[in-house]
Amino acid sequence: MKEIRSEANPDNSLPIGVFDSGLGGLTVVNAIRQCLPREKILYLGDNARVPYGTRSGATVERYARNCSEFLLNQRLKMLVVACNTVSAVALPAIRRMTAIPVLGVIEAGVRAVSISNAYRVGIIGTAGTILSDAYLQKIAEVNPDIEVYQEPTPLLVPLVEEGWLEGEITEAIIAQYLEPMVADEIQVLLLGCTHYPLLLKPIRKVLHLLGNRAAVIDSATCMAIDVENMIREKDLGAPDSATGGLSCFITDLPVSFQEVASRFLGETLTDITQVDIS
Amino acid sequence: MKEIRSEANPDNSLPIGVFDSGLGGLTVVNAIRQCLPREKILYLGDNARVPYGTRSGATVERYARNCSEFLLNQRLKMLVVACNTVSAVALPAIRRMTAIPVLGVIEAGVRAVSISNAYRVGIIGTAGTILSDAYLQKIAEVNPDIEVYQEPTPLLVPLVEEGWLEGEITEAIIAQYLEPMVADEIQVLLLGCTHYPLLLKPIRKVLHLLGNRAAVIDSATCMAIDVENMIREKDLGAPDSATGGLSCFITDLPVSFQEVASRFLGETLTDITQVDIS
Repeated sequence: MKEIRSEANPDNSLPIGVFDSGLGGLTVVNAIRQCLPREKILYLGDNARVPYGTRSGATVERYARNCSEFLLNQRLKMLVVACNTVSAVALPAIRRMTAIPVLGVIEAGVRAVSISNAYRVGIIGTAGTILSDAYLQKIAEVNPDIEVYQEPTPLLVPLVEEGWLEGEITEAIIAQYLEPMVADEIQVLLLGCTHYPLLLKPIRKVLHLLGNRAAVIDSATCMAIDVENMIREKDLGAPDSATGGLSCFITDLPVSFQEVASRFLGETLTDITQVDIS
Repeated sequence: MKEIRSEANPDNSLPIGVFDSGLGGLTVVNAIRQCLPREKILYLGDNARVPYGTRSGATVERYARNCSEFLLNQRLKMLVVACNTVSAVALPAIRRMTAIPVLGVIEAGVRAVSISNAYRVGIIGTAGTILSDAYLQKIAEVNPDIEVYQEPTPLLVPLVEEGWLEGEITEAIIAQYLEPMVADEIQVLLLGCTHYPLLLKPIRKVLHLLGNRAAVIDSATCMAIDVENMIREKDLGAPDSATGGLSCFITDLPVSFQEVASRFLGETLTDITQVDIS
């Protein structure tokens, strides 16, 4: 049966491409590798131009095309947009560039919200993601009765990159951001940024301290589930003999790269190439 | 006398060019306009590629050349590099591009430290600025007996951009960063980033609470003093009849632009043009 599938679909040994504006998407790669260890992954982090969240829509779309073109030129079976800002603004433009499945992190998060059956949902993300209202609109399409409470939380990305993943200051910043949502009695909190899974512990702690029992949904895990479902649906799984792997492309190589990348990925990156995609 | 100067130096009605990786350099523009209200200023903020502080040295130099080339093409009498990261890494490269005076914000800060006669000096800045050791080296050249205590403070830029310019969280973050320097009994604290003048008040408060009496030197004020001195030295002052002015070029136009820009400049920006310099 597996050999037949392999013959029927010659693309199943091709890699999955994943990109993000920086290194946050490595939390998505980490989650995909946990679920699908035999898949080969090509990751592109456009860290020379990070962050996308504060750019205009036109600039984000141009950057997203650069990233997609670079990865599509490597031949892929699936393209995963781990960047919330790009998913909010440029997914239709990317889908026009290719026939392979293109999965966006926002759709993955919205699907998880829908499955949760919550009707009061909080969403946090960068200013760009929240101000785009992309989550709000997608959730309204799926279920217009869900009430959405959004909050831009721009300090959380630098907090993660600084490595302040716990402690009083981190909790105080999170509490400052979450207090209005807790007053609105949210039942689910969706973390709409790939950096935020690293703050899961203090976010859960703060919600608990504020007396809220909302489930916390992180987009890295949602994205991995979506990738797994799409692979099953399209019969695109890597052959049983495949051993998987991760190759990482970045557009800049700052001094702290290895330290920050390992924090997101949960392991040390070995196969790294610096590229120019602009 | 003034007319003779005007004839002897036809360049004195040309503008002063100022650039930074983003909008922080508008604190320098603000300080220059306070000192020299008759000067015309062209400001370039490369906010499509901000922040420079986390990029590699080679990337920073390339970006710095783009910025300098754009401004030099407008004809200037002086070029002011308000960006600490560029001043740390790319000043010699910029000076090779032009014969007009090129002033860097690091040299301005070091001069102010030198004048203060302090021998235990603390410096805070972005990771890029601090890890470059540029302040350390320049201070050692001026006076090798000064002991320098450096600390990268990467959360302060996002804190300023979020507009959290006072309050408990802001003070707690500043205290976390300054405590080791206070233990080292610094006598002067140099703010090595153009964003930080907006945090002068909480920084002074935290130093006081920690029992330290260090003088706080901000680079925007130092830079304005250096510009004034250079204008006097080279006899480049605008004619008495000049009314000054500010034209602002930016490489991206995000939604929050006006709000953030006005916070740095202390007034509303009117003459804004979006340009592509890459």
